[in-house]
Parts: sequence; C-alpha cells; structure tokens
Amino acid sequence: MMTVFTRIGIVTRPDTPDITPDLHNLVAFLHRRGAEIHIGRDCAEYLPSAALAPCSVHADHEDWGRLCNLIIVLGGDGTFLSAARQVAPYRVPVVGVNLGTLGFLAQVPRENMTAELARIMSGQYLTENCILLQAEVYRNNEAVYRNLALNDVVLSRGLAGKMIEFEVFINEQFVYTQRSDGLIVSTPTGSTAYALAAGGAILQAGLNAFTLVPVCPQSLTNRPIVISDTAEIDILVTKASDARVHYDGQSFTDIQSMDRIALRRYHHAVKVLNPVHYQYYRTLRQKLHWGEQLV
Amino acid sequence: MMTVFTRIGIVTRPDTPDITPDLHNLVAFLHRRGAEIHIGRDCAEYLPSAALAPCSVHADHEDWGRLCNLIIVLGGDGTFLSAARQVAPYRVPVVGVNLGTLGFLAQVPRENMTAELARIMSGQYLTENCILLQAEVYRNNEAVYRNLALNDVVLSRGLAGKMIEFEVFINEQFVYTQRSDGLIVSTPTGSTAYALAAGGAILQAGLNAFTLVPVCPQSLTNRPIVISDTAEIDILVTKASDARVHYDGQSFTDIQSMDRIALRRYHHAVKVLNPVHYQYYRTLRQKLHWGEQLV
Amino acid sequence: MMTVFTRIGIVTRPDTPDITPDLHNLVAFLHRRGAEIHIGRDCAEYLPSAALAPCSVHADHEDWGRLCNLIIVLGGDGTFLSAARQVAPYRVPVVGVNLGTLGFLAQVPRENMTAELARIMSGQYLTENCILLQAEVYRNNEAVYRNLALNDVVLSRGLAGKMIEFEVFINEQFVYTQRSDGLIVSTPTGSTAYALAAGGAILQAGLNAFTLVPVCPQSLTNRPIVISDTAEIDILVTKASDARVHYDGQSFTDIQSMDRIALRRYHHAVKVLNPVHYQYYRTLRQKLHWGEQLV
Amino acid sequence: MMTVFTRIGIVTRPDTPDITPDLHNLVAFLHRRGAEIHIGRDCAEYLPSAALAPCSVHADHEDWGRLCNLIIVLGGDGTFLSAARQVAPYRVPVVGVNLGTLGFLAQVPRENMTAELARIMSGQYLTENCILLQAEVYRNNEAVYRNLALNDVVLSRGLAGKMIEFEVFINEQFVYTQRSDGLIVSTPTGSTAYALAAGGAILQAGLNAFTLVPVCPQSLTNRPIVISDTAEIDILVTKASDARVHYDGQSFTDIQSMDRIALRRYHHAVKVLNPVHYQYYRTLRQKLHWGEQLV
Repeated sequence: MMTVFTRIGIVTRPDTPDITPDLHNLVAFLHRRGAEIHIGRDCAEYLPSAALAPCSVHADHEDWGRLCNLIIVLGGDGTFLSAARQVAPYRVPVVGVNLGTLGFLAQVPRENMTAELARIMSGQYLTENCILLQAEVYRNNEAVYRNLALNDVVLSRGLAGKMIEFEVFINEQFVYTQRSDGLIVSTPTGSTAYALAAGGAILQAGLNAFTLVPVCPQSLTNRPIVISDTAEIDILVTKASDARVHYDGQSFTDIQSMDRIALRRYHHAVKVLNPVHYQYYRTLRQKLHWGEQLV
Repeated sequence: MMTVFTRIGIVTRPDTPDITPDLHNLVAFLHRRGAEIHIGRDCAEYLPSAALAPCSVHADHEDWGRLCNLIIVLGGDGTFLSAARQVAPYRVPVVGVNLGTLGFLAQVPRENMTAELARIMSGQYLTENCILLQAEVYRNNEAVYRNLALNDVVLSRGLAGKMIEFEVFINEQFVYTQRSDGLIVSTPTGSTAYALAAGGAILQAGLNAFTLVPVCPQSLTNRPIVISDTAEIDILVTKASDARVHYDGQSFTDIQSMDRIALRRYHHAVKVLNPVHYQYYRTLRQKLHWGEQLV
Repeated sequence: MMTVFTRIGIVTRPDTPDITPDLHNLVAFLHRRGAEIHIGRDCAEYLPSAALAPCSVHADHEDWGRLCNLIIVLGGDGTFLSAARQVAPYRVPVVGVNLGTLGFLAQVPRENMTAELARIMSGQYLTENCILLQAEVYRNNEAVYRNLALNDVVLSRGLAGKMIEFEVFINEQFVYTQRSDGLIVSTPTGSTAYALAAGGAILQAGLNAFTLVPVCPQSLTNRPIVISDTAEIDILVTKASDARVHYDGQSFTDIQSMDRIALRRYHHAVKVLNPVHYQYYRTLRQKLHWGEQLV
Repeated sequence: MMTVFTRIGIVTRPDTPDITPDLHNLVAFLHRRGAEIHIGRDCAEYLPSAALAPCSVHADHEDWGRLCNLIIVLGGDGTFLSAARQVAPYRVPVVGVNLGTLGFLAQVPRENMTAELARIMSGQYLTENCILLQAEVYRNNEAVYRNLALNDVVLSRGLAGKMIEFEVFINEQFVYTQRSDGLIVSTPTGSTAYALAAGGAILQAGLNAFTLVPVCPQSLTNRPIVISDTAEIDILVTKASDARVHYDGQSFTDIQSMDRIALRRYHHAVKVLNPVHYQYYRTLRQKLHWGEQLV
C-alpha cells in the first residue's frame, strides 16, 4: 500500500464557480508537498493567475492523464465518472473529493480534504478496482462508435414513445428477444444507479460481473440477469425508430435498426482510492436509507 | 340489453391491405340487415367501388361518429383505442373485431365475426364501461393542448437520457416530488398495458379508479398509487429538457419546464360491447399466461 | 361536523406500564369535561384506584363499546387495529393517540393529546371511512370461523416451507390458480402495511377497493390486482400442509386443504377521526420517506 | 472430456411406483455396458428381485456414494438436489434423467434416456460446476447444526405471522438490519427457484457469486444483493418467535433468537453433466416462457 504520489492531476466539475476556494486550497496543499500539478484549461479558469504558478496547464483535449500517477477529482459522482473513463487507459488511480452530498464514488469529504489526501498520498488508503464496460456500435459490420462506461451502457427508446425490439446474445448464445423501453448493462459500480431504479440487484463492489436489467419489458417474465465479466454481450437492435445508446448517461450514440452493440469488459480496471475508514456497506446503508423502518 | 343498432360506423386499421375481404364481408352483412353504414375515406380505400354502394363515405376529419349508434372496429387494440377516443364525445358504443392475436379490447374473433355481430346487434351482449382520462397541458396558466386517453397518459423523458423532475398533486394536495424516467397515469383499461410493464397493479375493468405508476424512480420508496377516478391529478414538471406527454402511445405533446398537466376523468365513459361469453378474468389469464407454472 | 362526544371509551395498549401518566392525564381531562368514561379491566389495571373513580370498568369480554359514542385508543397502530375491529359493529367513531413513532392510523400526537382531543370532541375533525374485510372460513360447506380485518386477511404457508396452492374466484368467476407463499387481501388502510412489503400498490385511503397481492408467486406473471369492494372474493385452498389465515396479523385460523375462505366487505365502515390539520399524503411521505433522493 | 464411467450409482425419486419400467430399463442398459451398479434399499424396492441381480444394494444411510464415479438421478429437480448434497463430499459427477416436466437440473429427457446416457458415459458431455452453500447454525457460540444446499438456504418466519428481525454481516462488516418474512441466500443454481419468486435477479450458471434476497422486507429500500462466493455471510437472528432455516426446501433447523447462521461456499462444487446439445439460455427461455409477448 506504500505508494508515493508525486505527479497529481486535478479534474474539476464544470460550471461550478464556487469551487474556486477548494481548488485554491488543494493546489496550495499539493504545492507545499512538492507535487507536480497537472490541470486542464477548464480547471485553470477557476483560478486567479497567481494561483496557477505551480500548475502545468494543458489543453482540454490533450492526453495529459498519462503524465500523472494520481488523479484527484473535485466534484461529485458525475465528474468522477467522466474523469475515470478518460484516465482508464493510463491506469492512473483516482480519488474523489465530494463537494455535494455523499456519493458512491467520491468518498473524500470536502471538510477535511487536505488531511485525507495527505494520508492517501502517504500510502494510507483502500483500493477498489472498478471494472469498465467497453461498448462498440457496429453498423453493416463496421464499428462506427466506441466508448467506455464505468456505470452503465444503456440502450434506450427515444421520444417516439414506442418500445424497441432487440435480441441479446451472451458468448454468441441467443438469450432472448425483448420488447421494452430499453436495456441497462451495468457494472457493479453502476448497479446502485440507474440499474437499481429499474429493479436490478446490487452487485457488490469488486464483483467480477455485469448485470443486464430490462427497462419496462413487455413480457412480465423478463428479469435482471447477472453474468460473468468475461462474457461477451451482443445486442442486435431489430426494431427502433429513435433509439440511443448512453454511456454513463453522459454521452450517447444514435442507433439504427440492425445496429449491433458489442459490450466487453475493458482490459484495464479503474483503481479508485478510498480513505482507510471507508466501508462499502456503510455507504450503501447511508445512500439507500437502509436504517429506516416503516411502521 | 334489448337494443337495436341500425346506424353502424366502421373504423379500420390503417395500412392493412389484407383487411379487404373481412371488410367486404362486414359491409355485405350489414347491408343484408338493412343497416345504415358510415365509413371514413381511409376505410373506403380498402373497398372496390361496387362494394361501396351501401356506404356513406365521410371525409376523415368529419365528425360522422354522431350519426351512428354503434361503431365496429376492424383491427386490434391500437385501432380500438384510437376509435374509442374519437367517438367518446358522442357516447356511441363500440365493438371490436380482432384481426390479429387476442387483444384486451377487441373481443370479437375474426373467424365468426358476422355471427357474433348478429347476436350483439340483436341485443345479446355484455357492456363494459371504460373510463377515459382527459389531459390538458397548461403553459403560463393557459391550456395549450387537450386530449383524451382510454389507456394512459404518460409523461416521459426524451432522448437526452436525463431523468425528469416533477411534482404531483391530488385534489390540490401535494403528494410527492419525483425524479424518474416518467410517470404513467392509467385507467383500468390501460393497467394491463404499459403500466403493468412498469410494475403497476392490475385494476379490474370497471373499477372507478386511476393508477399512478412511476417509471424507474430514483427514490426506491416511490410506489404505484391507486386513486379514485374523481380525483383531480396535477403534474407540475419542474425540470425537463426534452420531455413529452403521450396519449395512449398514439399522439403526444412536447413538454417544457413548468408546464402543468391536469388530468381528470372525462365526463363520458366509452361503452364497449363484448360477446355474452366474454369473461374478463379469462382474458387476463390468456394474455398474461397465468396458467403457466415454473418448475 | 358538529358532534358532541359525551360517552367515551378508552382502549389501551396491553403490557405497557409507562402508559399510566398519559392515561391518568386523559381520564382527568375527560372527567373535567363531564364525560362518561368506559374502560376495560385491562386498562383499569394501569391506574391507581383513586384515578378510577370517574370510570365505569367493564369485564374485557363485555360488549361495552355500544355504550360509547367515541373510542379513544392509546397506543400505536396495532392497538388501533384491534380496537377498530371490536367496535366496528356499533359504528362508534375511533380516534388514536400515538404513543410511539408516527403511525398511519393513530394520528393524535401524545405531546398535545388533550388539546387535540378537546378540538375533536368539540366537533373539529376530519372523518376517514375505513372499510373492513369480513372473512369466513368454510370447511365442508360450513362456516367454522369468522373474523374482521381493518388491514388485511392473509393466507400464508407455515413452517414446512412448502408453497401452498389455491384457486381464486371473484364474483364466482375463476381468476387464477396460484402456487405461492400466500395471498394478501388488503383494504386501502392495509395497503401501506404488509401488502406494500409484498410489492402491492398503495390504495388511497377511502377508495372503495380491495387489493389481492400474491406473496412470492411461482409464476412470474402473477401480479397484484385491485378490485371493487363490492366484489365477492373466494379462495379455495387446494393444497396446504400447514397454512393459516391471519387477520390484521393479530389472530388466525389454521387452514386445511379444501377449506374455502370467503371475503366480503363488512357492512359497516370504521369512522376514524383525525385532527383537522391531518393530510393523508403528508403521512405517506413521512412514513415512506418519499422526500429522500438517492445520488 | 474423455472419461470412462464404470461404477454407477442410481438415485430415484421416492414414492413413485411408476418409475419401475424406466429404472428397469436403466439397470439393464448399465448391465449390458458392464458397469458396476450401486443403489440404495429404497431404490431396490422398485425392482423385482430378478432385476436386482447386477446391483449392489446398500442400506440407505450408508455412504456408498464414494464407491461410484457417476451418479444417475431418476426423478426431477427435487431428487437431484437431494442426491447432489449427498454426493458432494465425494466429488462424484451427477447426471439427471427428467421424469416429469423439463427441469433446470435434470436435463436428460426420459424418452431417449439410454441413448443420451451412452453418449455421456463415453465422454460426450458438458460440465457445469455448481457451487454449494454450507450453512452452520451457532447457538451460544457452538455449532448445533450443519447442512449443505445446492439451491438456497432460507431463513423464514413461521406460523405466527410476525416478521423476524436479523442483522446481516458480510466478511465481518455490518450490512443491514432487516425486518421481513425472511432472507434467501441463493447459489446461481437456486437463483431461478425461490429467489426468483421473491424478486431476485438470475445469476448465470457458473457465476462465482451468491445472492441475498429479502422476502417482503418492511423497508422498501432493501434490495437483493449479489456478492462474491468467497464472502463470509453471517446472519444474526435478533428477534424470532418461530423462525426456521430451510436447506433446499428439503430439511430445516428451528431457529431461536440470537442464533447465528454462518454461510460459506462449500469447498467442493457439484459437477453436473449435461448432454452436449444442452444450452443454458434455452432452458431459461423455456422455463421462464421468455418467448411469450403480451399484447
């Protein structure tokens, strides 16, 4: 667990002007510790120029993730998802500072940000390996789009309000034909998000599995399935007037009839660092209000 | 139950060329019985001109429903829904001939269409009163859209894949704030359609009630509610980038943030005529495959 | 709403010694108002003999409910259920003082018990009519047991852990055969209790309907149904080694194979009096934690 | 896959007299192939004495499973579960001949029993490793009962109809307190049985996971969880008047308040042999009627 983090990237929630004091605080803290600091141009805009001195500022489209050995995310779960997808290829660990309400991913509370980060940077942390989904959309047997997802890949009907139809294959075996509002393919990380709202089961963090959760399926016997993360999942969309595939609810591809969506486990997992006092089930209890009893 | 149906309207499923023999058959049958026959221009196009002789053909936008004392629907549940909404204001009873698989609404089987219709037209039938929802969309306190629904009125998120937020009021009492994919307000007739797929309960045909069924609500404690059909339901959409309201899944209104959707029971119910051997629960069993046991 | 309540019965939660101060307080309050006070012997035991002076004490099995024109329940929803079943035949209104956490039924908070009761007794209250179920168990065509339920009548498998099998009839029409852990037949009042835990919909208080909610049905297509409270519900138990029928979870009948359970709406409803500031949906929100959002 | 099965055990469904012809047929077939045949005394009773000649008959309590290198089960899934638990310690593979309707476990159809078994015995088969749960009930820190389960271990309330209360720990971390009718801990094999009826997700056969499915939990936010099969699951029963633990629904232990149920993956998995044309998802589709669409 003894790791020295010296080259730190910072990713910030966009359009959040009141992030400046925390960001300022964080940069000063890292500078005091002698860390190399990397930020994107959008992040730089939050800071007065004096505060920027110790930072290397990169164009936002640049792949500066590879220069870091730790990414600190200032924001909520949304910012975390986006950052994680971007740095996944470089295998850089990520730690999240939560600026709002408690999240599932950003586990460092804003109140004692620097104290917690100090402990983590000195090697005191818990690691959670979060698997990602790699999605490829094939049209006429050609991959036309590719993306990663830390939470979920969601095939979804559009505004027309008509159910879509598709066939699901796992490891090239036909599983079922479905008519529904859509299908959620979720990682353990995503199993407490949209998949849960759609009636899916919670997959324990770290489980080597994905879950397929139908959204309002016409057939009442269609139920969520949990499958190995080594499974090859293919969805052939047979009837869809205005369907889309969403990646972590943050980007999407428009889908046409006969498109095939190929989902595989991405070869790297994201290493998420949590404070040593982090407990997965406590977070579940708090977020899901498991303590509360009716009557 | 002794009723004489003499002025018959026929409504047909659009874009179904192979409907011609059945339609031909039906017109001949009605003509033999000396009935006055009313059809729309779209229906007329299915027939050769000779067969049209006994029919009064009306422009499709004309309100010829009021001239009839019985409407016969040739199609499936979709055509039936559309016809029922149109004739509801005239309180004309409707009977459906099912051209495809067994439906919930169109209960006369194609095979013995004329024999069944003869019985019904001579007064041998069961009546089911199906209540309708009247929906009005208010924007800046002005009603900008109004429609009826026999199945359901569905507020639904669009392509953006973001949950929508809204507040629900019943009889002017605040019920809840909800973040979800949408909300289904369903009649008993609609309770076996989309509402069921979204996890709602089945409301027995004829029950004086509506049900509100959330679609993938973020809060796990949001559950379907069943309320009296005298209730005034108001939905205030507080956050929606691209939401829509769908009426029976057949027409829609685009919704903006702060639109209010007012739902009331429509003052007339649709009188649906069924063959005397019709049994509601048998239809449920057949459609929902209740006979089938696992293991 | 202007009613004068002068003959008051008090029903108390059993085995709750610390109820004495509140009970003492209540008796003194009623005495000051010049009310006639009726209590059972079990209630009398909570009070020192001096405090008993203004009370008529009745044997617990005596039908003294008919002497009162208002019943005050000191306890929680459990005590309320039990009292309501007992006084239902006399059509005496009931008001509940909640000694524990907020309930669905006992809506007068302990903190300002006398102030609220003063208002109610002077005619300031809201009335909620709660329908009851009357259950009769028939064995060899003979009624062997009869009971009322304000919440629910539950047919349930026993310790053997084997599913039971039964047939359901509504108005003498066959509905379905079911293999399951049991079946809940619930009133609107009970729809927020066990029926909700089993996946049922919430029936708005005052709705003239019952709901049938299967418990872990083997067939995935078996869903909750909501039916009119005029419906005659019959359950024929075809296979049950150690089943029981529970009434409000407070009393029960052992069931044998081929027993028939006949459920009807009881001819009187219980009139529940609530403070004028009572709001049904606010109670739902509070009890079901509807305000809480995930993520 | 090339295996020679020469020492064959036969396990039969009890109390099924019409099993005799198939059993006779099977013994004759095995005898022709020169196999050593082992049966229990209960199985022997199905056969006329002449037919018993080639069989070694063992007392039913004897551990003759260890003498075999293949167990053939004649019965349904119930008989299979029971046989699998018994032979699990000897790591003998099991194949099931289905005498009734298609099962999830017994995959050899009765019609071509000998042809299929001939192929399997000559090495043409697919292997499915089915993990088992080992349950131990601790009372005053002493193990008072121990059993295996191939489907599920179910903690369940009894006849009293009162919810039970318990605390769940995973890997010694507190997960939640629950009030409910019970808790199902299921293997992938069991995930299509009782766990599915209670609202659980389907775990793909072979997944290294268990699922915890609450039965009618009072808190609406309690949802099924899927956890690694390396997890140590402990259930502390804090309040239970007449609870039981059931193992595959076939045997049970009476539970007292403060009993602890410790669940671990059993060190051996059961090797189930299936015909080469076996497809897991096809069986799911057939058993769950996935092909059937409403409306």
